[in-house]
Amino acid sequence: MVSEKMFQLGSKSSVIRETFEYGKKRAAEIGAENVFDFSLGNPGVPAPAGVDDTIRRLLDTTPSIQLHGYTSAPGDATVRAAIAADLNRRFGTDYGAGDLYMTTGAAAALSITLRALCCEGDEFIVPAPFFPEYRVFTEAAGGRLVVTDAAPDLQPDTAALAAAIGPHTKAVILNSPNNPSGAVFTRKTLTTVAGILRDTEKRYGHPIYILSDEPYREIVYDGAEVAWLPSLYADTAVCYSYSKSLSLPGERIGYILVPPQAADARRLYAAVCGAGRALGYVCASSLFQRVAAANASLTSDLDFYRRNRALLYENLCRMGYDCVRPDGAFYLFVRALEPDAAAFCRRAREHELLLVPSDDFGLGGYVRIAYCVPTETIRRSLPAFEALIASYQ
Amino acid sequence: MVSEKMFQLGSKSSVIRETFEYGKKRAAEIGAENVFDFSLGNPGVPAPAGVDDTIRRLLDTTPSIQLHGYTSAPGDATVRAAIAADLNRRFGTDYGAGDLYMTTGAAAALSITLRALCCEGDEFIVPAPFFPEYRVFTEAAGGRLVVTDAAPDLQPDTAALAAAIGPHTKAVILNSPNNPSGAVFTRKTLTTVAGILRDTEKRYGHPIYILSDEPYREIVYDGAEVAWLPSLYADTAVCYSYSKSLSLPGERIGYILVPPQAADARRLYAAVCGAGRALGYVCASSLFQRVAAANASLTSDLDFYRRNRALLYENLCRMGYDCVRPDGAFYLFVRALEPDAAAFCRRAREHELLLVPSDDFGLGGYVRIAYCVPTETIRRSLPAFEALIASYQ
Repeated sequence: MVSEKMFQLGSKSSVIRETFEYGKKRAAEIGAENVFDFSLGNPGVPAPAGVDDTIRRLLDTTPSIQLHGYTSAPGDATVRAAIAADLNRRFGTDYGAGDLYMTTGAAAALSITLRALCCEGDEFIVPAPFFPEYRVFTEAAGGRLVVTDAAPDLQPDTAALAAAIGPHTKAVILNSPNNPSGAVFTRKTLTTVAGILRDTEKRYGHPIYILSDEPYREIVYDGAEVAWLPSLYADTAVCYSYSKSLSLPGERIGYILVPPQAADARRLYAAVCGAGRALGYVCASSLFQRVAAANASLTSDLDFYRRNRALLYENLCRMGYDCVRPDGAFYLFVRALEPDAAAFCRRAREHELLLVPSDDFGLGGYVRIAYCVPTETIRRSLPAFEALIASYQ
Repeated sequence: MVSEKMFQLGSKSSVIRETFEYGKKRAAEIGAENVFDFSLGNPGVPAPAGVDDTIRRLLDTTPSIQLHGYTSAPGDATVRAAIAADLNRRFGTDYGAGDLYMTTGAAAALSITLRALCCEGDEFIVPAPFFPEYRVFTEAAGGRLVVTDAAPDLQPDTAALAAAIGPHTKAVILNSPNNPSGAVFTRKTLTTVAGILRDTEKRYGHPIYILSDEPYREIVYDGAEVAWLPSLYADTAVCYSYSKSLSLPGERIGYILVPPQAADARRLYAAVCGAGRALGYVCASSLFQRVAAANASLTSDLDFYRRNRALLYENLCRMGYDCVRPDGAFYLFVRALEPDAAAFCRRAREHELLLVPSDDFGLGGYVRIAYCVPTETIRRSLPAFEALIASYQ
């Protein structure tokens, strides 16, 4: 008598969650230091000191009724102006408060934007590999998720993308730096995608949006460029979260940007407001809106991820693992040593290595290793990775 | 090309919002002290000191990664255990952490529970007058809202309720203390409702739930009793928010309680988890979950509302207004002085009195006066109320 679909969603936990829960159980059995849990994308570094300092300052200086009171539904206007100014400074744009809608994190941003866009029969395309909750959010909004292949370098396969676009395509979801692969989509790839979309917009006579999901925008290495997508393709809406850049995943704070250059921008923005209302998002946390605005130009200690990445990537390559070079985010994508990635992960568990098989990300044959863990965990795990590859030889 | 329904929801602001925006504009023209804005249910007293003290203590004692990190999707287990213990202490119940699901406020709690329950063709009944977003949330979940009449004393008309229940009824939404009327539903009314629902459950052979929306539970006067609904009717799910009791409306923190005694409780709880996931709620704010747990037994200064209520109610009655005696919440429901409440509100505006007509609450002929404003605003508004009633004589 309850919704069967919601019951299914709530009772089958994702393989990521299941792995994480197993890790907690296993840690209780043999000690946390002997379990190498690489399952979760939970930032491993504290928020920058500015975050807690901002909270203390706000508590000392802002009256309670204002600090903890409702903001307008799209967010406090001063907060939005500050975030727009930060974007303008970095990307040479000209956004204003009225182009931003503050959200309860990136999941809310995506859910709201999909609901705002989705009309009956609409399709949303995502290139594999992709964050599996995209399917959940798309279907909850009433849309259909269409998955296209990855190219061998794990950039989107642009020919496959072009072939997948049809009259019902409402948007393409892009996530760069990518979860799970760590790939950063190149300017060349994105320019090609933009060209394809412009052509197909003309062919079908209606806008086809890019939803750019960018929680890892600031987490890149070796000078990799994260191109500002709205400058390459006007019909882009950006979903952002401070979860990773400011290490605030539990506080759920992010935004939707609807650039004024996007097709039907004012209608889309209004629909975003309507969808936020329909889904029960009254406003994003009043305190954390202000925290985000005050710290928009900061990041947590990215050197931590840089060190972990070098340690893991270099050692796994040396051992003979076939790793995708991670230009961003904090995931290493590694080819499984047998065709069935889930079977490979079961074997890795025998060595106390908790990895996530790539199948749920829409692509078989890989595992995701979240290296946002303490550096010591990586160091201690290396003999286990040695033993795992040796067991296949 | 965007969702027409979401566009409509986002571009037509509610009459409450419209009144509030008018008030801000008018304040800029003639000075805030000359505008008597009774439109919004925004708590007028600070959060209890314990709230900000808890935040400071957490910042000083809890590592950032833990404090601001993801909790499990239903909420931190320690937080849920503490809130269950508070409920058990107050209501003599025996709930555990596993019966609670922390939410981003009451709107999220309602949206998630409705989505968890709603199957195709389902109806949800609400007695008038009711908070208008119930319609938005119910329709977004795919359900149909059925509104039943109020009795003359603004308790639910139980005969009308009984007549409205049919084979497609999934739940009845009850909100006591009530927004907008300030009525507290009596134990007698609720016992009658429970009896009706038990009979109709038998007749139709499936559970009919009560969704008890209780953000004003602690805000009652003259010893009015807010009966604990799950003790009167087993198939009750409770939606709660700390917005009003702790004056934290902007921080969006609340919970859903699925008592183990409710029909299909474990299935419903799982569906709640699924719906939270589908709507993009990853977890409620990690910091404010802990704040709620630490302050669950506190309230902000209810004497403030008590004083405001006495000042407004006694004076308006003395002047000749026909007021519903407000036993709870912070709203006074007053009969309009002409049949068209909206026309009455327009006339009130000529006296700088910003009231909300009751039509959007599903009942014509009344206005809602939110008296959670500074006491001085009420005092200064009294001559305007005098002039308004005089203009009708």
